[in-house]
This record gives sequence, structure tokens and C-alpha cells, in this order.
Amino acid sequence: MQDSTTDFRKLWSEIGVDLDLHDQLMAGLDRVFTHTHLWQKDRPASMSLFDKAFHDSHAGRVAEIAAYRAKGGKSVGTFCIYVPDEIALAAGVLPIPLCGGSGWAVDHADRMFPRDICPLVRSTFGMSFSNTCPYKKLKDFAVGETTCDAKKKAWDLLGFLSLEIPQKKNIIDRQLWLSEVERFRGEMEKLSGRAVTAEALASSIRLVNNKRRLLQRINGFRKLDEPPISGLDALLVSQAALNMDVEAFNAAAGVLVAELEERASKGVSAYSMPGPRVLFAGSPSPMGFAKTHYVVESSGLRIVADESCTGMRYFRDLVDEGASSLEDMISAIADRYFSIDCACFSPNMERMDNVAALLPEYRVQGVIHGILQYCHGYDIEAKALDKVLSAAGVPSLKIVADYGEQDEEQIRVRVEAFRELLAVGGGITTG
Amino acid sequence: MQDSTTDFRKLWSEIGVDLDLHDQLMAGLDRVFTHTHLWQKDRPASMSLFDKAFHDSHAGRVAEIAAYRAKGGKSVGTFCIYVPDEIALAAGVLPIPLCGGSGWAVDHADRMFPRDICPLVRSTFGMSFSNTCPYKKLKDFAVGETTCDAKKKAWDLLGFLSLEIPQKKNIIDRQLWLSEVERFRGEMEKLSGRAVTAEALASSIRLVNNKRRLLQRINGFRKLDEPPISGLDALLVSQAALNMDVEAFNAAAGVLVAELEERASKGVSAYSMPGPRVLFAGSPSPMGFAKTHYVVESSGLRIVADESCTGMRYFRDLVDEGASSLEDMISAIADRYFSIDCACFSPNMERMDNVAALLPEYRVQGVIHGILQYCHGYDIEAKALDKVLSAAGVPSLKIVADYGEQDEEQIRVRVEAFRELLAVGGGITTG
Repeated sequence: MQDSTTDFRKLWSEIGVDLDLHDQLMAGLDRVFTHTHLWQKDRPASMSLFDKAFHDSHAGRVAEIAAYRAKGGKSVGTFCIYVPDEIALAAGVLPIPLCGGSGWAVDHADRMFPRDICPLVRSTFGMSFSNTCPYKKLKDFAVGETTCDAKKKAWDLLGFLSLEIPQKKNIIDRQLWLSEVERFRGEMEKLSGRAVTAEALASSIRLVNNKRRLLQRINGFRKLDEPPISGLDALLVSQAALNMDVEAFNAAAGVLVAELEERASKGVSAYSMPGPRVLFAGSPSPMGFAKTHYVVESSGLRIVADESCTGMRYFRDLVDEGASSLEDMISAIADRYFSIDCACFSPNMERMDNVAALLPEYRVQGVIHGILQYCHGYDIEAKALDKVLSAAGVPSLKIVADYGEQDEEQIRVRVEAFRELLAVGGGITTG
Repeated sequence: MQDSTTDFRKLWSEIGVDLDLHDQLMAGLDRVFTHTHLWQKDRPASMSLFDKAFHDSHAGRVAEIAAYRAKGGKSVGTFCIYVPDEIALAAGVLPIPLCGGSGWAVDHADRMFPRDICPLVRSTFGMSFSNTCPYKKLKDFAVGETTCDAKKKAWDLLGFLSLEIPQKKNIIDRQLWLSEVERFRGEMEKLSGRAVTAEALASSIRLVNNKRRLLQRINGFRKLDEPPISGLDALLVSQAALNMDVEAFNAAAGVLVAELEERASKGVSAYSMPGPRVLFAGSPSPMGFAKTHYVVESSGLRIVADESCTGMRYFRDLVDEGASSLEDMISAIADRYFSIDCACFSPNMERMDNVAALLPEYRVQGVIHGILQYCHGYDIEAKALDKVLSAAGVPSLKIVADYGEQDEEQIRVRVEAFRELLAVGGGITTG
């Protein structure tokens, strides 16, 4: 253990990590993880694989990528589930999702960014500016996108390549998006010096679809009366899916699926007590951040579905595997990503429909709008979603959260009141 | 006077205005206007025309539009300088810019919108929700756009028609924007039942271009050593241009131009003392809001140029009048609006170039980044602009403002320090 820690310190040092600040970051992440996750009494045993992935994200995974790059491998940082992994992988480029989930890092962004932008953006750049992101120098460049004002302008400021995500879903928007996907392919090919072939793309489409299928299966167990995995752990699995090597993740997810099947057949629940079944809706929760999920589940509610970017939005849709030509595959990829129901679309009827469909499927009794502070898109759209929920008689509670821990008990008061409301079958929308 | 007031109360009542709340709003607007504008000692006499326009915006102008609509005229509310007025006018539809500038109205938006979105959006909807916007029922519908997250999602929530503004300036973005301009034409024609003809469009292009030319001339006087019009008054003129009937505005602007020529020839300054020449850059200042301009100029700085949407961004570019076919005119209109250098573009190099060009042209010694609170786009882009300013040796000061008056003296402390910095010729960027 001592040796391995020493090795990582050597590696971190080589890749420009500020060791003292990084120690602070890691101590904070460990403490938060213990606090938010390890109180759970009935976790699947194979969650240890994902606990390990969490801790490996600044250690073993970094070493893997460093080794890959030492052999000439190329990699890019990404910040959004719109970036088509399949194309990067087929060009021989490893995409590394870099959205920050560390509350510790947030204030470190202040030397460049305004304080009143979302904690996700601030955490991401706080880690970069404080030289505590081990991936900072383990990438050739970063690929942003235009999903929200704060991210869009941050990429501009830092001179990142950025993909234009259209804001409507008309035919010309699909054309624009296809041209962006093609541009991305060109950039990936230029970086690796390797052309994307139909064979390589078919292979990466299958690989990434398999990851999505496994995530779908894991999350499908949450439809049961006694979900064998908690919302907190399902979130951790998604967070790990974004960091781990795809094949390693798929192997771990397969182990978890087998265990969940076993638990399901025996009626083993992840929860020690029954509690209202709720849907988590809204902003993403990058690895390191699970405050809202934690407060909700430790207050006796059960998050049985999560429609966010670190939930179903990440794995709901597969790329059509029926295409055989390269052109058709690229088109299928464009279609798949164009169907993402992000709040950046105006209007965003697909999200309304998708959420409405989840309510009976997961027997949702209430919705938690989990909004990152200053995330205007999901914050305002929560009100539009409430119209859909209200029509279905499903109450909601909006929790606007930053990455700080100080307000957990304030949030808990509201969550407990919401639990009481759901327990008596109330239909009043509180969002 | 009594009669006219009584008449307006009758009119307001007929169009659904809440008279008690509207009295509060008007008292607040009058008080703020007196506070921000009437301390100035050397205003052009013809500014009285624009002071009147300010007060008429809830009175005479409302009566004009009510009379126009009573005769079957159509009108739409707009919230952004991207909406092509020329096309609406040529279709026989009156566009009414409705961005709110009232601090009083901001909190009235809370029943629907989050509190941490920009005061412009909250003021706009606060006036609507409190039934103090006299234009609420004097329009057939509202036309939004996708320029920022808060506005985009607000239009969705309220079910507004909205135009998609692209986020990059590539060829396909221009195609997308042209298709949106065409869609807007279709909507306007459908509303009025009148097809846009080449003749009508050529006429409205000339009319609106003439407004822009007058605004350009008025603002051109600010290049002089002794600007004959203050930044505060130039802002008021722009605000009036957005509310007044175009021909009435052009007539008033013509009177002002003649007076400014006279003042310029005699070296009459709008300022009683010389002070550092600064550029105002950033978010718009809708009618009713002039806090930042007020604090800056009452602290002894002279705002000699304003690149915001209520400054040059509104009138810098003309529509090419060389086109003769309807199709070419529509294309020329699309080009003109596509050249707007809003922070919604990624990257927004045109704005960097435009600001760089203003620095020598107006002999700018410092830049005030006037940012509306939670306006992520201009807030983050201020940092990108600072790189341009730094290269030119021009310091900047960022002022993030809401519509409240409580922090004026706090802001003044910072502005006065900035004035001292400029006075000693310091080149330190403080933004």
C-alpha cells in the first residue's frame, strides 16, 4: 500500500499535480464519499467495484491513461454527454469526461470565473487552475460544447474546440448537428492520424451501446417494489461509467447485474425501510457530488429513477447498429445524440414526454428537481416539467444545490416535509 | 393635466392594468429617473423630447398603440434586438420591445421564475405578472429568441414563439438563421394577413436604417473632446428609440442632431468637468434602468461610447439597401442581424474586433464592464475582452449590477478608485 501510494505521488508529480493541494482535495473527496455513501447498510457487495473506481479515478485510472499516452495514445477532455465517444474511440482517441464534482475545488475557479455560475463549471476549472486535476496534462486538448451559457463562454475564454449543439429540433438543426459531428470526426482523425473506418466505428458503437445496455439493466431493477440498488449507488455506477475504461466498466457492470438478479430473485432491497418512490430530475451530478441524492435517500425516500445526464439521459438511447456504411453510421450517431433531451432545447418537449413515460414505469410518487445553483436551463424548465407532473398528480420538490455541505440539514427539513406529503398521498405540487 | 391623467387611468383600466400597483411602478420609475438623469446640469435642451418619451412610454405611447389596434392594427412583443423590425413593419405588424427596466417589478416575477436569473428577465415578467405592463394586452403574441439560457427557457415556459439564434458564425449557421428569418416573415404575414412585398420591405428597411443613421450621428458626437451629450442621455435616446414610433423618433432625433451640431461647433460639453473617457461594455440597460451609467458619470467619468444592445449593438450595422428583389432583401436583413456581436456566439471574435476598433476611435481610456447579475454570457466574456483591452493598455472595471439602488454607493467607491487609476494614467487591468 505504501509503495503504491508512493508510486502515485511520483506519477502526480510528473504530470504537474500540486501534491499539497491534491492531498487536500483527496482528503475532502474521501470524507464526502464516506459521508454520502457508506452509511448505507444494504449495498450490493459488488458496489465495492465502483467504490474502487471512485478512489481509482485519481490513482489507478490516471496511471492507465498515463501509460496509454506514454505509448503514443491520444486523449481529449470532454464535459458533456453530447460528445460522441464512439467517433473518438474509432479514431483511436480516448475521451476523458472532466466535469468536476469536488466542492473543495469550487473556490479555486475564482481567479478567472465569476462566482455566480454553476458549481460544476467552477469545480471543473477550480481543479484545473489549482493543478489538482490529474488529467490536465493527460490530454491533447479539450472538447467543449454550447449547451449552456456558462460552459459555452468558459470554452471560448480558454480557447477550447467546441461543438455547436442546436437549440431546436427542426430539420436544419439536425443538418447543423450532423455537420458538427463530421467536424468532430475530422478533429479526432487529425489528432490521432488515423482515419475512422466502418469496421472500427461499428466496433466502438457496439462497445458503447453495450455500456448503455448494462446501465439500462442495472437501472431497470429499480422498477421493482424492492429495488436491489439504491439511487445513490446507481448514481455512483453512472459516475464510474464516465471515468472508467469502457471494457473494464462493462466487466464490473456485468458482475453487478448478476448480483442484482440474485438480490431481485430473493427480494433483497437496498433500503432498510420502505419509503416514497421518487424520480430525480434536473442537473447532472459529476463524480464527487451526491449531496442531493444523499439527503433525499438518507431522509427515507427512495430514488428509483434519475433522468439527468448522470442518469438515464446518459444511457437511455442506443445508436442504431443496423448501419453498414461509414456514412450511415455517422448519421445514426448524429441521430442518437440529437435525441438527447437536454434543457438546452427550446422547446424541450421530448423531456416532458420522457419524464411522463417514467412516472408509471417506475411507479413514481414524487419528483425531486435537483438543480445546480445558477443552472438556469434546468431551473426554469423545472416549472415547465411541473405542468406535466401536475397533470399526472405527481408532486415535486425543487432543491437548488451548490457543492457545499453546509446546507444539508436545511435541505433535509424540506425533504422530510415532502416525504410526509407523499406518505399521506398528498397531490400538492410544492416545487 | 388632470383630464389627461384621468384619460390614461381609464385606458389602463380597459387594458387590464392593475391601477394601484401601476401607481407604485410609475412613482418608482419617476423617482429613479429624477435621481439618475436630472442631476445633470448641461443637458441639450432637446433631451426634453426624450424625457417626454420616457414618461410617455406608459401613457401617450400606450394610447397610440391602443388606437392603432382599435383600428385593426397588429402588434407583437419582442425582447431582443435580433428580431428583424423591418419584416414585421413590412407585414403591417408593429414590434413592441418589452424588456423590463423597472427595479420595482423584479420581485413580482418570483411566483414563476427563480430569483437568481437576471433582473432584465425578472423585471419583464414581474411587470407582466403584476399586470403593470400596459403592453401586455396590446399585443397579439410575443416573439422570443434563444440568445441566453434564462430568456430561452422563459419563452418555453410561457409558450412564446421563439427564433433560434445560432451560436457560431459558420455557413450552416447563416443558413439556419436565414430560415428563421423566413419563418418570422411567415408568422408576421399570417398575423396581419398581409404579404410582405418588395416595395413595403424596401420602405421599412429605409425607415429603420434612417433610425440607425440618426443614432450613429448622435453617438458620433461623443468622439469629440467635449462630448455635447452625456452617456446617460445617449442611453436614454437609445431606450426611447426602442419604444417610440419610428417616424416620431426619427423626427425627435433630427432635432437633437441639429442641437448637437450647434453645441459641437461652440464646444459646449455635456459635462461640467473633464473626466476619463470610458467605454460601457456588456449587458443591455432597458428603459428604466441606468444605475451603472448614473454611478459612473456622477463619479466624474465620461461614458463616450456604449457597445451594448442599448448602445452601438443596436445601430452599428445597416441593412444593405442595394437589393431590389424580395429574396435579396430578406437575405440582406439576415446578414445584418447575423453580424450582431452578441455574447451568445462562440467564439465571439467580432465583438473583440469591434471593441478594439472603438478604443482609438473614441479615445477610450478605460472600459466599464456593465454586467447584469447572472448574465453569464457577458460576465464570462468580460474576461475574454480584458485580454483585448490589456493588449491595448486599456484598464477595465467590472460592475455586476442588479436593478436595486441600495448598492450605488458601494459601486461608487469602486468607480472612484477606477477614476483615480485612469487619472494617473495607470495601465493596470482591474476587471
